[in-house]
Amino acid sequence: MMRDFSRGTAHLSINTATLRKQLPLPGIIEACATRSIPAICPWRDQVAAAGLDATAKQIKAAGLALSGYCRGGFFTAADAAGLEAALEDNHRAIDEAATLGAPCLVLVVGSLPGALTGTPAYNDIGLARSQVFDGIAATLDYARKASIPLAIEPLHPMQGADRACVNTLEQALDICDALDPGRTGALGVALDTYHVWWDPKLEAQIARAGRERLLAYHICDWLNPTRDLLNDRGMMGDGIIELKKVRGWVEATGYTGFAEVEIFSDRWWSLSADEVLDTCIARYGTVV
Amino acid sequence: MMRDFSRGTAHLSINTATLRKQLPLPGIIEACATRSIPAICPWRDQVAAAGLDATAKQIKAAGLALSGYCRGGFFTAADAAGLEAALEDNHRAIDEAATLGAPCLVLVVGSLPGALTGTPAYNDIGLARSQVFDGIAATLDYARKASIPLAIEPLHPMQGADRACVNTLEQALDICDALDPGRTGALGVALDTYHVWWDPKLEAQIARAGRERLLAYHICDWLNPTRDLLNDRGMMGDGIIELKKVRGWVEATGYTGFAEVEIFSDRWWSLSADEVLDTCIARYGTVV
Repeated sequence: MMRDFSRGTAHLSINTATLRKQLPLPGIIEACATRSIPAICPWRDQVAAAGLDATAKQIKAAGLALSGYCRGGFFTAADAAGLEAALEDNHRAIDEAATLGAPCLVLVVGSLPGALTGTPAYNDIGLARSQVFDGIAATLDYARKASIPLAIEPLHPMQGADRACVNTLEQALDICDALDPGRTGALGVALDTYHVWWDPKLEAQIARAGRERLLAYHICDWLNPTRDLLNDRGMMGDGIIELKKVRGWVEATGYTGFAEVEIFSDRWWSLSADEVLDTCIARYGTVV
Repeated sequence: MMRDFSRGTAHLSINTATLRKQLPLPGIIEACATRSIPAICPWRDQVAAAGLDATAKQIKAAGLALSGYCRGGFFTAADAAGLEAALEDNHRAIDEAATLGAPCLVLVVGSLPGALTGTPAYNDIGLARSQVFDGIAATLDYARKASIPLAIEPLHPMQGADRACVNTLEQALDICDALDPGRTGALGVALDTYHVWWDPKLEAQIARAGRERLLAYHICDWLNPTRDLLNDRGMMGDGIIELKKVRGWVEATGYTGFAEVEIFSDRWWSLSADEVLDTCIARYGTVV
């Protein structure tokens, strides 16, 4: 028995990257509140630009909930100083998440260090995975104390060299099982349909994750054809992802959280915030 | 103990798509033979353009071996007539492979029917996977009689909507185990580093495949950044794939076949066949 999304926007959240080219964060918050969109998931750079405390106040005053905070992670580095700096940065992200009242910190874990900005310092993805595991392990205690669950986001394998070396839900859950065998809620996953729709083990691994591990649910669509590896995500309904089927699997675990729209798209960034949000609401009510 | 690729080209094969923009197939065969490249893997469209019998004769006269034949597959369809036509087409591909003396037919299995040419007839990837399974099952008997092993090629998940709904080595091997539990050699996989390098289970699944299931080994590189989902493959050594490490895993199974270079790249297609082949040989001897 799935939740009925056709009546209102009660379970809709907007990831603020979806409007990052149109509006600064205060404008995004205002635009969402005006439309009775009940939640957002803000990004650190947008929060920093608007000011952390001011943002926390505005979100509270607007009556918005958060569906997460983007993002921690990028645990890999070429040397010990880099690894330590990554841990420090994740502590700051956790502190910010706590100030904002976020229900979790989304982790884009990183991969070959330096790949995102040019030349990788090494190409041993096994080493990257080991550094990521150690980084999450080292961060978990701090996160527990701050009561901020860590949500590992498996990224699509096409982003496996530069953004995240955790590329399947199974792999993310293996890390969760190793570091939080008691399923305490302190460690789980952020499931983004864009990254995982292709996975032949998706249904089984969502069931394995269960309610305790499913900390966030992100939606958008996979366009056919897809013309860019990063910024050609589709609006829900414009692509080939079976969004209702996947949501059915997610809700079968007992998930009661938000469906968070996160669209990186040169096309949608070129349209007005009004048009994007109106389309998100319309699609949420019909195809999500 | 890995084979030494630094002395000569004994285990090098060129997939003829690598030179598809520069030369017709007879010219590719001649260019490879001239350089003492011992094997090729031709594509059906190139063979059809040159003539099947003429190609078989030229390959034999040139003393070249084949490392495979590209490609069968595309088993999915919107209706029964389409499914039947796909089976017929795979029979023809098997016949051609036999005429050419190919050691296997590489299967790019297909995914959402019609996605490759525009609009998918459906978006149920589970249905596509079911049709693929049935298609391979229905083709296997014909392939056995022709003594042409079928090599399922898992494609990168970014090609999961339009080209292949088999996207991990584990998934391909599950199909092999279901349809050929006796590991007879009639069914196996074509392992392309480009499609599988990111897979956290790669080493374990290569070991699981073993010599009986590893029918072909394709190489190229993953560029960082990658700018196109289809035609931006890298020359070996220009990207981040740990080619020697993966070859070590492959050879640990007892694999003694060719390392087949398959590069779809607008950049390499714009260079002369001489330059491409010379570079392939140089990289084969150093970074593969």
